[in-house]
Amino acid sequence: MSILEKINSSADIKALSRAEVHALCEELRRFEIESISKTGGHLASNLGAVELTVAIHRVYDTAQDRLIFDVGHQSYTHKIITGRRESFHTLRQRHGVSGFPKPNEAKDDAFIAGHASTSVSAAVGMAKARTLQGEDYDVVAVIGDGALTGGLAFEGLCNAAASNEPIVIILNDNNMSISKNVGGTAHLLQAMRMRPGYINFKKWFRSVSSHTRWIYEFVHRTKERLKSRILPGNVFSDLGLYYLGPVDGHDVDKLENAVRLARELRRPVLLHVLTKKGKGCPYAEAHPDKYHGVGPFDPVTGELAPVGESFSDKMGKYLCEAAEKDGRIVVITAAMAGGTGTECFEDTFPRRFFDVGIAEGHAVTMAGAMAKQGLVPVFAVYSSFLQRSLDMMIHDVSLEGLHVVFCVDRAGLVGSDGETHQGLFDISYLGTVPGMTVLAPGSFEELRAMLGYALGSVTGPVAVRYPRGGEGRYTDCSMAAETVIREGSDITLLCYGTMVNEALDAADKLAMQGVSAEIVKLGILFPNRYDACLQSLRKTGRILAVEEVCAAGCIGRRVLEACSENEVHIRAANLLNLGDGIIPHGTVAQLRHDYGIDADAIVRCAAQLCGRDVREP
Amino acid sequence: MSILEKINSSADIKALSRAEVHALCEELRRFEIESISKTGGHLASNLGAVELTVAIHRVYDTAQDRLIFDVGHQSYTHKIITGRRESFHTLRQRHGVSGFPKPNEAKDDAFIAGHASTSVSAAVGMAKARTLQGEDYDVVAVIGDGALTGGLAFEGLCNAAASNEPIVIILNDNNMSISKNVGGTAHLLQAMRMRPGYINFKKWFRSVSSHTRWIYEFVHRTKERLKSRILPGNVFSDLGLYYLGPVDGHDVDKLENAVRLARELRRPVLLHVLTKKGKGCPYAEAHPDKYHGVGPFDPVTGELAPVGESFSDKMGKYLCEAAEKDGRIVVITAAMAGGTGTECFEDTFPRRFFDVGIAEGHAVTMAGAMAKQGLVPVFAVYSSFLQRSLDMMIHDVSLEGLHVVFCVDRAGLVGSDGETHQGLFDISYLGTVPGMTVLAPGSFEELRAMLGYALGSVTGPVAVRYPRGGEGRYTDCSMAAETVIREGSDITLLCYGTMVNEALDAADKLAMQGVSAEIVKLGILFPNRYDACLQSLRKTGRILAVEEVCAAGCIGRRVLEACSENEVHIRAANLLNLGDGIIPHGTVAQLRHDYGIDADAIVRCAAQLCGRDVREP
Repeated sequence: MSILEKINSSADIKALSRAEVHALCEELRRFEIESISKTGGHLASNLGAVELTVAIHRVYDTAQDRLIFDVGHQSYTHKIITGRRESFHTLRQRHGVSGFPKPNEAKDDAFIAGHASTSVSAAVGMAKARTLQGEDYDVVAVIGDGALTGGLAFEGLCNAAASNEPIVIILNDNNMSISKNVGGTAHLLQAMRMRPGYINFKKWFRSVSSHTRWIYEFVHRTKERLKSRILPGNVFSDLGLYYLGPVDGHDVDKLENAVRLARELRRPVLLHVLTKKGKGCPYAEAHPDKYHGVGPFDPVTGELAPVGESFSDKMGKYLCEAAEKDGRIVVITAAMAGGTGTECFEDTFPRRFFDVGIAEGHAVTMAGAMAKQGLVPVFAVYSSFLQRSLDMMIHDVSLEGLHVVFCVDRAGLVGSDGETHQGLFDISYLGTVPGMTVLAPGSFEELRAMLGYALGSVTGPVAVRYPRGGEGRYTDCSMAAETVIREGSDITLLCYGTMVNEALDAADKLAMQGVSAEIVKLGILFPNRYDACLQSLRKTGRILAVEEVCAAGCIGRRVLEACSENEVHIRAANLLNLGDGIIPHGTVAQLRHDYGIDADAIVRCAAQLCGRDVREP
Repeated sequence: MSILEKINSSADIKALSRAEVHALCEELRRFEIESISKTGGHLASNLGAVELTVAIHRVYDTAQDRLIFDVGHQSYTHKIITGRRESFHTLRQRHGVSGFPKPNEAKDDAFIAGHASTSVSAAVGMAKARTLQGEDYDVVAVIGDGALTGGLAFEGLCNAAASNEPIVIILNDNNMSISKNVGGTAHLLQAMRMRPGYINFKKWFRSVSSHTRWIYEFVHRTKERLKSRILPGNVFSDLGLYYLGPVDGHDVDKLENAVRLARELRRPVLLHVLTKKGKGCPYAEAHPDKYHGVGPFDPVTGELAPVGESFSDKMGKYLCEAAEKDGRIVVITAAMAGGTGTECFEDTFPRRFFDVGIAEGHAVTMAGAMAKQGLVPVFAVYSSFLQRSLDMMIHDVSLEGLHVVFCVDRAGLVGSDGETHQGLFDISYLGTVPGMTVLAPGSFEELRAMLGYALGSVTGPVAVRYPRGGEGRYTDCSMAAETVIREGSDITLLCYGTMVNEALDAADKLAMQGVSAEIVKLGILFPNRYDACLQSLRKTGRILAVEEVCAAGCIGRRVLEACSENEVHIRAANLLNLGDGIIPHGTVAQLRHDYGIDADAIVRCAAQLCGRDVREP
């Protein structure tokens, strides 16, 4: 029986001998490679944090103490050793283990984490709550150097320092966020990584001074003075945090000692740990970016299962085409060159490509300023991460009517990344931004045409939103604000983006039941007078809007308003969308089915509106 | 003729003698006190930046070079000396001079600024644009130490350092944002302020080494080495910026030299300037917080015109009442204790009050973590500043259904602060957050009741939104989701918040025209089935929704959806709101009139819907 099989909690880890701890780390690494090779998931980041996670569990009890991950790309080891080993083969699958920390899944998951830079702020909140409530659990945050580039992390660090609360912030420094690190934080960490083993010096000092409190206090003060000479130019100390490190993040014994020391200091401490992404897995070590988030692969060779061309890939290509012709176009990413398909742009136009780190707010304000000076900036970003920039879109872009192009990737359901990454809200918050134009291509060719329109014809803020993955049966191209892509007489199906594929499938099935559905596909979500829609409704009198979006963002409501303004009388209406709820992980097809927006749901609902019996397919 | 009267541009400033420059600063200070005492405006911050602004204009030409203010609370001197002296008496009045930098107003205003921490990001964008386009103008950002606490500023500084662009970032350090400064940045600036006059050392070094380029280069490298010994622990140097300072911010000659040196370094420079808020005006120096943003006052004594009790004042009191009974309640502010009326809470419950600096993102994530651990956190914040926290509301509060209470102050039109501060978007973006409850009190007593409901009865995220200023004729109290506050038969007026006062006035006037209006007042904007509304509409058949909100956030659309779902047939409908536009400054009454949502507009529109001729009042 392996060691891993006996581990179900922090307590089990604490009971191990040193030799067993070393063996456990190796077992964990093998288990993760084997399991992720089947399910897909975040490989390189998790392999880098095996020893760190084990060391944390040697010191803390995560059932009581609060261990807060940042982004959560490194929480697999934690999940496996806190009761989720046997269900780990269901990772990121419907009703399976979530790919991110999830309090609903286990009490050991202290706080949700799918977006970056939140852990320190959450730790400050939990530490303050603990103290106010007179409790005595410990609070630990684990933040990567990538997440440190986000302004929220800086706000958290400042407030952690000012709190004087016992909080341990572990900086998991692999010199790489999802792709490579950029900017000022990289610069400052570079200097710190070079420093020799400060932690051993401290350890020695402690071995001399332990046991007697007053000696400790005296020595502590001396150390403070010494430290300021040994560690010039440490930004964390400057902010008022107690800096420890750097420590080798793959030496589990040293790590355990360092974590223990950090805990005993009873104040805000930053423990700097150096790790390697993909550690112990040759292909992941060699290409940590490629093996960040992966589908299934061969665990021996690392060969990835082939995937089809995606909207992201196409966007990168189309941006290059456009930039070839127009020197004003520049592209901005927030540490997502790979995910947004813009790596090819970086290769082709390195001077016109800007990776700002995980700093979506900065990206938008900078883009506004670039537009003000005559460039045409494009910010390629995931729908759920652009949520960080609502204020900057309003204040720094919209109020001056500046021409910034937002390429909103992963719009709609994203599948296995689940609730923190679903792109359900963009239409709603983009609709909040005065003067924003939103375009929704349904095919690759429409993506190209709409990008061209956004770059060349729109003069204010404009977003092109497109989903994860590739196109479906609809491969036509229309740049019209609205297009009737199928004529019918009984009911109007309103759709846009790749939901057009569900609508087409539904219309086929409805035809077999004798229901004639007209499909109006929107190209421009707003501003739009929805005239073609109204014209169709004057004919059919029934509307079924089918949208992969939260209810607050649905275009159906806008169309109903247009109907009442234009005195178009509707006999029957239904707005099919994802409602006000939170959508967990699963495949996109499963989720469309579960939440009732797939072709079958459309058929059922349309037949009902038309007063027909529903034949189950 | 005074010196000031001859000044209309940077060029005019450059033409002055040293003695004239000194005299100009005094004239500017007197002019500003005199003028602001009549119009109201931002007093203390502008008085603190007089010499700094003059020094900048001695070095730069703001018609070409790009001078970017942060928040814009300190841009009056700049406005006065760049052609807006004679119109300055119209400050913050309808069609008058804006209280914030506004590119539409003058080419000297490089970028809009009403929210904090944006200037460095904007400067980076403009500097990159300049270089890509082969231009040679200079880019200067002026950021206060308060704005430095925002994470966006940190993102900007990191990217400024990494850019290697010539950018001068001037830190206007008055050791106080709007109220007092907090957190880690305060800690680090404290240390730097103590440092003796480094700038003089540099000046001496330059006087030795000027003229010959190679000598300069050699000396420069030596200086770099020296600097690292002279300036240990400087966070700005750690990030890769060239740090200069601190400089006395009221010595205009020294300032001019420092700005000139910063400009000549041709790299990202941070120039640290120490200023005093309210400088030269005894009462403003003594109480910079009180004289931050003011109405009219006596220029000699500083006595402020009395103002009535506001929703903010009441909120502070009601929070104290609630916290007396429930020890779980804590209050968070983002540097706005005064503005949100929560100073009294800070005085009464100092351990349960948290000022996090200008860090709205951190505030929300921290609040989520506090709620997770069993506290009941309340975040008191302006509507337009909460825009910064959309992602944190979704990711760190909503996804776990955590009970965080948002006291959304300045919701709706804010008047003289204008477009950057209008609270028009909160209903829209709050509607994007899954599970969010939004309450809209129309009177002080409703504020108390709804706060109690939000604290005690709601279990997930909940917002209470209330306007700037006080209550109107409506002083009743209803905690119902919907209340028919006036019965009628011809048309249903749908309203909430203080728009109920306009609806009541309109209903009175309509009655005189023989139109019987029923008023349905919403207490809970959502979730709400709008049953009372539907019942009223079944009777009247006509709806006029009157809302002080952007179109994307209007509740009218939700009601129209409920009508079509419930097969309530409407003969006539109109949704009166602030549309998709951008609303400038003016009084709230003027703006309600201009944008057609006041009682007169309601009367006109209602009469039209009812098919009556409109009698102009």
